[in-house]
Amino acid sequence: MVDKDWIPKEKTRSTEDEEPFVGRVPEKDIPGSRRVLDRETSEMVKHAESLGIDTVFQRQSKFSGSSVCIDKRCIFGSQGLCCKQCAMGPCRIRQDDLSKPYKINKGTCGAGADTIAARNLLMMVARGTAAHASHAKHVALMLLKTAQHKTPYSIKDIQKLKAISSRINLNGENSIEGIANNVGQSALLDILGNEDYMRFAMSYCPLDRTLFDLGVIPKSVGHELLEEGHETSMGTMADPTSLILHAVRLGLADITSLVISSELQDVVFGVPKPVISKIEINVLEEKKVNVVIHGHIQLLSEKIVELSEDEELLDKARRAGAQGINIVGCCCSGNDMLVRHGIPLAGGNLEQELIITTGLVEAFVMDVQCIFPNVQNVAWKFHTKLISTMKEGRFTNAEHIPFEEERADEIARRILESAIENFPNRGRDIFLPDVEPRELMAGFSAEGCFDALSRLNPGNPLKPLIDSITAGDIYGIVLFSGCTSPKASANHAIIAKELLSHNVLIVATGCAAQACAREGLLATDAAEKYAGAGLKKFLTVLGEASGIDGALPPVWHFGSCVDNARVIILISALAEKLGVRIKDLPFAASAAEWVTEKAAAIGTGAVALGITVHLGVAPPVLGSRAVVSLLTQKAEELFGAKFIVELDPNKASMVLLDHIEEARENLGIESKGKVIPLSC
Amino acid sequence: MVDKDWIPKEKTRSTEDEEPFVGRVPEKDIPGSRRVLDRETSEMVKHAESLGIDTVFQRQSKFSGSSVCIDKRCIFGSQGLCCKQCAMGPCRIRQDDLSKPYKINKGTCGAGADTIAARNLLMMVARGTAAHASHAKHVALMLLKTAQHKTPYSIKDIQKLKAISSRINLNGENSIEGIANNVGQSALLDILGNEDYMRFAMSYCPLDRTLFDLGVIPKSVGHELLEEGHETSMGTMADPTSLILHAVRLGLADITSLVISSELQDVVFGVPKPVISKIEINVLEEKKVNVVIHGHIQLLSEKIVELSEDEELLDKARRAGAQGINIVGCCCSGNDMLVRHGIPLAGGNLEQELIITTGLVEAFVMDVQCIFPNVQNVAWKFHTKLISTMKEGRFTNAEHIPFEEERADEIARRILESAIENFPNRGRDIFLPDVEPRELMAGFSAEGCFDALSRLNPGNPLKPLIDSITAGDIYGIVLFSGCTSPKASANHAIIAKELLSHNVLIVATGCAAQACAREGLLATDAAEKYAGAGLKKFLTVLGEASGIDGALPPVWHFGSCVDNARVIILISALAEKLGVRIKDLPFAASAAEWVTEKAAAIGTGAVALGITVHLGVAPPVLGSRAVVSLLTQKAEELFGAKFIVELDPNKASMVLLDHIEEARENLGIESKGKVIPLSC
Repeated sequence: MVDKDWIPKEKTRSTEDEEPFVGRVPEKDIPGSRRVLDRETSEMVKHAESLGIDTVFQRQSKFSGSSVCIDKRCIFGSQGLCCKQCAMGPCRIRQDDLSKPYKINKGTCGAGADTIAARNLLMMVARGTAAHASHAKHVALMLLKTAQHKTPYSIKDIQKLKAISSRINLNGENSIEGIANNVGQSALLDILGNEDYMRFAMSYCPLDRTLFDLGVIPKSVGHELLEEGHETSMGTMADPTSLILHAVRLGLADITSLVISSELQDVVFGVPKPVISKIEINVLEEKKVNVVIHGHIQLLSEKIVELSEDEELLDKARRAGAQGINIVGCCCSGNDMLVRHGIPLAGGNLEQELIITTGLVEAFVMDVQCIFPNVQNVAWKFHTKLISTMKEGRFTNAEHIPFEEERADEIARRILESAIENFPNRGRDIFLPDVEPRELMAGFSAEGCFDALSRLNPGNPLKPLIDSITAGDIYGIVLFSGCTSPKASANHAIIAKELLSHNVLIVATGCAAQACAREGLLATDAAEKYAGAGLKKFLTVLGEASGIDGALPPVWHFGSCVDNARVIILISALAEKLGVRIKDLPFAASAAEWVTEKAAAIGTGAVALGITVHLGVAPPVLGSRAVVSLLTQKAEELFGAKFIVELDPNKASMVLLDHIEEARENLGIESKGKVIPLSC
Repeated sequence: MVDKDWIPKEKTRSTEDEEPFVGRVPEKDIPGSRRVLDRETSEMVKHAESLGIDTVFQRQSKFSGSSVCIDKRCIFGSQGLCCKQCAMGPCRIRQDDLSKPYKINKGTCGAGADTIAARNLLMMVARGTAAHASHAKHVALMLLKTAQHKTPYSIKDIQKLKAISSRINLNGENSIEGIANNVGQSALLDILGNEDYMRFAMSYCPLDRTLFDLGVIPKSVGHELLEEGHETSMGTMADPTSLILHAVRLGLADITSLVISSELQDVVFGVPKPVISKIEINVLEEKKVNVVIHGHIQLLSEKIVELSEDEELLDKARRAGAQGINIVGCCCSGNDMLVRHGIPLAGGNLEQELIITTGLVEAFVMDVQCIFPNVQNVAWKFHTKLISTMKEGRFTNAEHIPFEEERADEIARRILESAIENFPNRGRDIFLPDVEPRELMAGFSAEGCFDALSRLNPGNPLKPLIDSITAGDIYGIVLFSGCTSPKASANHAIIAKELLSHNVLIVATGCAAQACAREGLLATDAAEKYAGAGLKKFLTVLGEASGIDGALPPVWHFGSCVDNARVIILISALAEKLGVRIKDLPFAASAAEWVTEKAAAIGTGAVALGITVHLGVAPPVLGSRAVVSLLTQKAEELFGAKFIVELDPNKASMVLLDHIEEARENLGIESKGKVIPLSC
């Protein structure tokens, strides 16, 4: 546990009445919340409070007790021991041996802790997978319609399209349209087809024989969701192992969905290239029309960014009294626009409400996922127009401007016009913390890495990376992934700094990448400040070869959470090059502040692929010994990887370093002493 | 509330120690449980207790408080106000205006009561739909493989196959195999296809223009589940109306899945015909090898029943000391074997554990759905072999003999052999209550009804039914559907008797049909005992025309819960004949003791089709005014039908009679006084 203040003491205000919440920070640190806010965020939180607005930080604090954070949270639900499947329930139980003082250890149907916890986890992974697969379906449909020239988009990267087509073993088509059609149809079949294994899974994931033997290779996502719904319904699947293996199958379907989204987006929008941009809430600009893009599916965002430079709209903005149009990103739609267009980031999931409280947001455009429903209550107090754009993400108090691929230009224009028209409606409650935005570099990709490394060794691009790992200049690689959580301390930054000092190269996505960026770990001076000597050497050599003035940052921002696919593709190539399995690499993943079901799905799929995953927030399964054992022990026997739950970020760093050390030892490349070069 | 004893007072035993439960009935009625057990069941429960075995009745009682039944049940979950979607939670909230003493009215993300309750309901309906669609998929695959002559099954009803093919507008194939293949493929596409509306929905459900306008016509089940998973994931869909409309879409997909299962099962196994059989736990026979068939997917059950008459196996049974093989049914696999082969019923969901405690069950064969995991704990105390047969329904402590269509004979034989071999292992704890099994008639179908009615009027078979309704001989028709619940009083029987006395014809399926059967309402003398004069007249005329000696029973058993499709097909035909919509008929449904997610799905689909549905157990949504309003008020504006929640069975009878009266008035066929014949 980190014993730090939630808000720096000198900044807190005194208050006597803690209940009900009426817009004040309690005098003491908000009890039980272990989150340490940076100065900017704490200023914004206090500004919100002064306006009587509650944000995620206060809501977390209301649920938190004085010393343990499950006080007002249900202990049954927290442990996975609550079942709401049927109308005999809800049932809440204890484990068998915890029969006092609450003696019920079976649900009304007789389901025990193991069945209930496993079922809950499976449902959670299924929702995450559905979210990613729905994203993939939107992208596949977009590709198909674009191939048919029905959209205002075009196929930007023909080479990538052909590479995908070749990788998934499609042939017989030569025209771009034909290839795109086949790739899109294959993707759709993977999402909603019948009984075959997912083609993208078979082509992109390094699937071990064990995975086939365990029956965890996914058929279509729809198929797996159908069976999941059936199995989790009352009185069907009672065996926890089968339920967890189904979660693994869905996890692999989830990873495959990421691959489909990430790869096909590259076809239509181009592979990202390194860009320099900035992050902080004050990327909002007082004199411009500010449009925030929030969510995860970037189809419409692309057009909003494109049209924000449209002369007609800029004219309109000027006539409304603004100096221009300022598009800023939030969450993963923000990450997408960052890596492809250098759009600055205002924040991630935790900051979404605060962004609105600046009073500077003319339009807050939301697609899907991680959009706190409370933005409705916040926006209501300002002139901000909430605009929802996808049928899956509707809000009671938002204007709905439905996205259609065919009419993307028109819809993006309508949204921007609406934002411009709203500029004169700004109120007086305008507030921006007085800090400079952080510089960051983003836009890494598997292709970009190969390209940069090939400047060091054109014939064998992975060799310089492998040599650096062998030599210990790069001690290991850790993927930072997932969300930022109001339940956690600033885990990402704490762990990242520790790992960087031990020469661990960090690859990051999603809100995890943003959390590192907010600490300056993605800035061009970050290698100098935070990286160990070996890592700094590698980053400098690679930076110079890439034509960058100095070292690359030691945390590589690979994009949104679906772009975890990029990291898996890169790491798979590295393992293949070395002739080992992913599980054998000095590589791990850390979801140090995970929140969403999507994170649960990605993590489960990653473990199946041999990636050991650290969780910095307890998953709701700890009430079942069988499930805990499956995830944290048995998984290692089955997949060579497992989940590690460690809430303390300092201890987590040690655990991750130990994991890397063990892998290095097994590969014979101990860091302390003898160096045996890996052949490649 | 019904103020009756749980167990007749003179039968209870005295005990001093109530906690922990060690196999005793508390001195007083088990507090909070409102269930009134019949004598046989209460004897069995006490027998189980004497062996230290807990059953669903005791588990319910442990969750129940003294006067309200939500004492140890979570009040948040009971009202739908518990959210476990993401790792920021779990969150449990109050409605906005119920801010004391628990002041949290938003989840950590800001989701309020309406979003959370609607999301919970949608997830519940989705699980139910997935269960039914998975069933349909198994049946469709069986039809396809049978058409390819890969299974030991055959197509029994070619006429029905052709009728289905014609109804769903398939043509171009003349061979039986070709037609069967097309029908099976269409069914599979409905379950897991892409973007088209479900073909079976479009052909079988009377879909009003309103339903299209509301966007509630389902695409494939897989598609709807994918979007459901996405929408219910954290931070995506916040609008309760959209969530409920999605539940309606899934409800219609559920009804369509029932249609696929029921219709295609008829093709392979034949349309059921009226049979006389019996129901009660003592259909088990002490001198025979007893095999219990439990679950919902009858594919394997058919073969078990068929092979139970195999001479070789009977010989083997005799050599093991038994006088034969006795197959008895439980739950809906039991209903299926009843309506097709006259197999007697040992019980439904509530009796499943008690059946094992007789000590007479050699093999307890389980496929999927409604199988209480506690059967594992019960069977462990006896010689009973638990055998699971489907990949979706696994148990930690059961032998798994996986069903494969291609090897159905071999697998059924193996199960029966296993049962026979287990006969000598019977223990001494054998107990059967000393009652006679109840006689019952079952096996009704839409086809059977048309056939019987056509004997009264060959040219216009529905006319005699419509004339009887017009004349008030049949006051109305009510579908009794769904489960039996330990939370409820014996609602089905109480309501049924009241309605019958008012000349309401009851059509029944699933455990609801069994509950009526256990009260003798399906016996050949039931019309005499329970039906009002008009209804008795109709049943006598129809019975005599059908060649039955006397009146038909006043409750018509249409089969398993998927056979609700039969009722919907029949009622749709009736509405079409009259030129009205289903909502206009003097017809309703009652799920007076519903338990499962499947019931929630069927009910939601039924409301969309214009069937007002009574629920005798509170659905977990009462914490949201918006959701309650949508289901119980707004639904009527949208669909002409709604949910009615009434826990008191006596009041429920009145509500159902009022509903019928109102429909009769609107049709101009008031029961008191003037009779205006409906044209048909």
